[in-house]
Amino acid sequence: MSLFITFEGGEGSGKSTILRKIDEKLRADGFETVLTREPGGTPIAEQIRNVILDKSNTKMDGRTEALLYAASRRQHLVEKVWPALKEGKVVLCDRYLDSSLAYQGGARGLGVDNVLNVNLFATEGTYPDLTLLFDLEPEVGLSRIAANQNREVNRLDLEKIDFHNAVRSAFLGLAKRYPERYVIINADQPIDKVFEDAYKAILARLK
Amino acid sequence: MSLFITFEGGEGSGKSTILRKIDEKLRADGFETVLTREPGGTPIAEQIRNVILDKSNTKMDGRTEALLYAASRRQHLVEKVWPALKEGKVVLCDRYLDSSLAYQGGARGLGVDNVLNVNLFATEGTYPDLTLLFDLEPEVGLSRIAANQNREVNRLDLEKIDFHNAVRSAFLGLAKRYPERYVIINADQPIDKVFEDAYKAILARLK
Repeated sequence: MSLFITFEGGEGSGKSTILRKIDEKLRADGFETVLTREPGGTPIAEQIRNVILDKSNTKMDGRTEALLYAASRRQHLVEKVWPALKEGKVVLCDRYLDSSLAYQGGARGLGVDNVLNVNLFATEGTYPDLTLLFDLEPEVGLSRIAANQNREVNRLDLEKIDFHNAVRSAFLGLAKRYPERYVIINADQPIDKVFEDAYKAILARLK
Repeated sequence: MSLFITFEGGEGSGKSTILRKIDEKLRADGFETVLTREPGGTPIAEQIRNVILDKSNTKMDGRTEALLYAASRRQHLVEKVWPALKEGKVVLCDRYLDSSLAYQGGARGLGVDNVLNVNLFATEGTYPDLTLLFDLEPEVGLSRIAANQNREVNRLDLEKIDFHNAVRSAFLGLAKRYPERYVIINADQPIDKVFEDAYKAILARLK
């Protein structure tokens, strides 16, 4: 059976690591999976992404950026996600719609409903069947990143804490808004336990 | 006084020629003008436009394209149109919002209100003060283009006539929807007369 699962959360939540482990486990259990993230290797979406990420584009307006993310999302859906779902595969996607809602709509202040509106045009209402929110205190997530890079949490990281708190609170708001598709995973646990919780939530949907 | 004027119409309507003549005349009459068209030389909007126009992007979905046009429009507004209006200039823009509504919303079938929705996010409701619609039968416009290129109207041009009729009818629908900002100019007249009609409509707003 096809299932569209998205992995969401703040920085250092471990979601991308868990995503790869879940992909391996699902394949071992006999499911056909597609592991992806926008722009997902689709050339048009890659080109759009390059415009977003081009460091010389310092004058890029927040709404321009939101429209470009929506455009890249659209093309990724059309070329990659929809065909895989049509073939009955389990699609595991690292960030999707909800990241735009939380980061740009919530934390950057464009408004969740404004950004949702644009994304409904882009997705024609294709919501994930299941969204795993890897939730933890931003301080913990940022410390993990700092530890990985063998450095102290610096002043800049701490100044940004308000931003990361806003992202977290936006994600938790989305979990309340969409309880039918959201499962909150406590990401402040040992990685094996986080993996186990996430895998259980997915199996419950696959049965 | 600042005024935001857009020039709209189908192929071969002569609007771009008239636009340049009007710009010259307004300057001669002492107005400060900015003649522009999206992406208007703003580097980010140019990059977006390059993705849209890249001929190798044959898989581009219609909604992706609409989102990219909206993104380019946003950046052009932020970097060029709004600053010029703020400085009290008359902005003359060759195509804007209404071209997306007529071509993509109407003729390409995405829905005028769907495309408007995305563009309201992009423009934050910045409509033109005045939109000149250079209206004429698509057959006449296409014949003009063919004559310019010293060739007969060919089978392909004629097959496309339904599309151009749909564009025209969408523009006329928009003129009805936004009577306060639309002036329909009969473009099936000698160019001096078309220019005269357009200039009168502008002067009426500048007084």
